[in-house]
Amino acid sequence: MTPKLVAGIEPPYYTAVFTSIRPDAPEGYAETASRMRRSVEEIPGYLGHESARTPGGIGITVAYFRDLESLDAWRLHTAHQEAKAYGREHWYDSYSVHIGRVERSYGHERA
Amino acid sequence: MTPKLVAGIEPPYYTAVFTSIRPDAPEGYAETASRMRRSVEEIPGYLGHESARTPGGIGITVAYFRDLESLDAWRLHTAHQEAKAYGREHWYDSYSVHIGRVERSYGHERA
Repeated sequence: MTPKLVAGIEPPYYTAVFTSIRPDAPEGYAETASRMRRSVEEIPGYLGHESARTPGGIGITVAYFRDLESLDAWRLHTAHQEAKAYGREHWYDSYSVHIGRVERSYGHERA
Repeated sequence: MTPKLVAGIEPPYYTAVFTSIRPDAPEGYAETASRMRRSVEEIPGYLGHESARTPGGIGITVAYFRDLESLDAWRLHTAHQEAKAYGREHWYDSYSVHIGRVERSYGHERA
């Protein structure tokens, strides 16, 4: 699969930046992540996300939402809350979440 | 080096989310990146950054700034502008930048 960036969203919108440190492939992680990817797509106002993880290093996921209501709908989603609780217990050494309101964005694509 | 997250910044602050697609180790990239890491630390109001890149996939860097003034000081920094122009020409297939004002953040660290 060729990676592709989320682009072209008109501000204002919200970013949820999730940075984490965990083992590279903990047990059960891939299945839960795949289930969460399907669930978040059902949230009205969800606009996409990107993930990157340096092997042995930090992982960063950025999810894009139209407004705080849609971001909070995902934050409070029951299956998501269960996955987060499980992840805190079993997967993550540490993580941080930064909720930002985007007023400005731009990009570049090679012609 | 044990990876460590940027954490404990008191809102409000700003995040510059930079997502990109480029070859994994293009010529000249590592030297420039290392030079930029030293330069950004001289910017008053710079609070840290995190980077992650999935081999063959997407890269994400999040930089944290106290306010828009410090973020813009880095955006307009001469050596940084030169590096970005060079990167557009030689390294990046595509990139996006999302500037967000963070009002809410939280985290977790395993006891």
